[in-house]
Amino acid sequence: MSAKLSDVAKLAEVSTATVSRVLNKSGYVSKKSREKVMLAVEELEYKPSKVASFLASRKLAFNIGIVAGKRLFRVLSDQSDQFYTIVLKGIEEFFAGNNMRGSLVPSNNFSEDYDGYLLIGGEITEEDIKKAKETKKPVVLIDQYLAGVKVDCVVSDGYDGAIYGMKKLISKGLKKIVNIHGPLSHFGFKDRFDGYISAMEGAGYLPKAYEYDEDNDNMSAIIDLLLSRYGLPDAVFGCNDTAAIRAMEELQARGIKIPEEVSILGFDDIVNSSATTPSLTTFKIFKHEMGVVGSRRLQSLLIGNEPRPTKISLFTEFVQRESTL
Amino acid sequence: MSAKLSDVAKLAEVSTATVSRVLNKSGYVSKKSREKVMLAVEELEYKPSKVASFLASRKLAFNIGIVAGKRLFRVLSDQSDQFYTIVLKGIEEFFAGNNMRGSLVPSNNFSEDYDGYLLIGGEITEEDIKKAKETKKPVVLIDQYLAGVKVDCVVSDGYDGAIYGMKKLISKGLKKIVNIHGPLSHFGFKDRFDGYISAMEGAGYLPKAYEYDEDNDNMSAIIDLLLSRYGLPDAVFGCNDTAAIRAMEELQARGIKIPEEVSILGFDDIVNSSATTPSLTTFKIFKHEMGVVGSRRLQSLLIGNEPRPTKISLFTEFVQRESTL
Repeated sequence: MSAKLSDVAKLAEVSTATVSRVLNKSGYVSKKSREKVMLAVEELEYKPSKVASFLASRKLAFNIGIVAGKRLFRVLSDQSDQFYTIVLKGIEEFFAGNNMRGSLVPSNNFSEDYDGYLLIGGEITEEDIKKAKETKKPVVLIDQYLAGVKVDCVVSDGYDGAIYGMKKLISKGLKKIVNIHGPLSHFGFKDRFDGYISAMEGAGYLPKAYEYDEDNDNMSAIIDLLLSRYGLPDAVFGCNDTAAIRAMEELQARGIKIPEEVSILGFDDIVNSSATTPSLTTFKIFKHEMGVVGSRRLQSLLIGNEPRPTKISLFTEFVQRESTL
Repeated sequence: MSAKLSDVAKLAEVSTATVSRVLNKSGYVSKKSREKVMLAVEELEYKPSKVASFLASRKLAFNIGIVAGKRLFRVLSDQSDQFYTIVLKGIEEFFAGNNMRGSLVPSNNFSEDYDGYLLIGGEITEEDIKKAKETKKPVVLIDQYLAGVKVDCVVSDGYDGAIYGMKKLISKGLKKIVNIHGPLSHFGFKDRFDGYISAMEGAGYLPKAYEYDEDNDNMSAIIDLLLSRYGLPDAVFGCNDTAAIRAMEELQARGIKIPEEVSILGFDDIVNSSATTPSLTTFKIFKHEMGVVGSRRLQSLLIGNEPRPTKISLFTEFVQRESTL
């Protein structure tokens, strides 16, 4: 008969909880105990079964640091953010069902006392990731991806959504499709912009893009420039709903009919997007699922399943409303 | 005390296996039995625990169709393909440990008799996916992604790898970096090409790319064109090792020293890449893990966890050898 966890604990002269911690690479174990456990594992040729390790993981109370940048930490604390409050609900639900506990931690006051880390939102920097990685604990980013950094992350797939939306517009005979995006240094905008470019090039149409500055709201100037230099487009694809709605307002203020003359497509499905006239066609992002999927990925890493870092992209859902043909 | 699976089975007058199948949405159950089970679930307010559904899933012997295109089906059958034979090993290992059985199925002879499908390789078409989706069973693509189709998939992250590699080259002071890629209609080549373009633009350098036709081996002509029109580059980034090795050979045939005059970077880490002189710097793709991760994703879908479709990208690993500075 093959060796059990308790046999390993006996031979190593430690508790079964310590053996679990060593095998699951979670929680503090002294170097000496760790060595005794590994020797016992070797001697007994102990192989943890998948069920046993799954059940063991459920018994372990993992303590997770949920790290957010300064701005996000504030809005998460008072639950005033529509987007991330829902992401956080997904995390809390998964934690509750899986014996994990989470504490909200500001990234500028980083603590090393956790079994693993969820780093949330576009404010997370390479420096934050470096600090988290230095703890040698599992780390998962949610709604952030930094190219070439190779840390586990869960994001929404803006590239795929943009291509899907562009194909829809193109299938209606629309050709002069203009993109209005936020700063391309932000992963989310860049991802959607890349999808727009790829779809236009694939269809043989010339892409045309403008950068919108949300803080200073330069949409009126963008629309003037667009109409005088490029002419009336068939459609405007905004890289987020805020930009799409502002473009729609500025076009309407100049007497242009939506969608008869110009179709408007947004991204994010914010609450306001269904309240505009006409209502905005856009993409739904699965925020709750991002929290759940990120938490499950962190749990997998804590247990030791599939340790190679991956990027998990959740596909978005096209929401047809009235602002597009 | 809360209701058990067996209570549901008793009230619905069906076997516990049938209840499992209904709750896990897997395998065939008659419409009548399904309705009886759902009524009993409602009446008893039955809530399957996560552990119970996990264990139930382990008891269910899922029967999986592993679908491959014509060329791949042939090489998988005789195990002559280095890349996919390893992917398949990952799948087989996961299946063996999780009570799943797989049968290799050619995509042109599609059968509906399976609980779920793994569709493998770049030959898989939208048509193949459509056929698989029509079965209403879970479907996961491995090493293939089709933009805008929104089906679960597991791929290697060429975009991220390319950016990582380009940053490495750029950090050595290399600026004139040329890309040689296969057909951009293939997701893998396009993904790596996009990463190259993004990194060059990010650094403020002009990208320059050539398309290599592997079947007709036009590398000699490409290198002639490159040297006469563009001049000697600082580095060549090949979108796969085959292209990188051919570029290296053609440059060496013209008396150019690698890496002193030109650095060469490949992608894939094929067996030959360590046998060249100088040995090729490249990226390792985690083929075995792709099989495991794809299989686990399919299992999750069979159990009903995280049903929103996702794209899982495994980061690659930079392998520093002698062909780059």
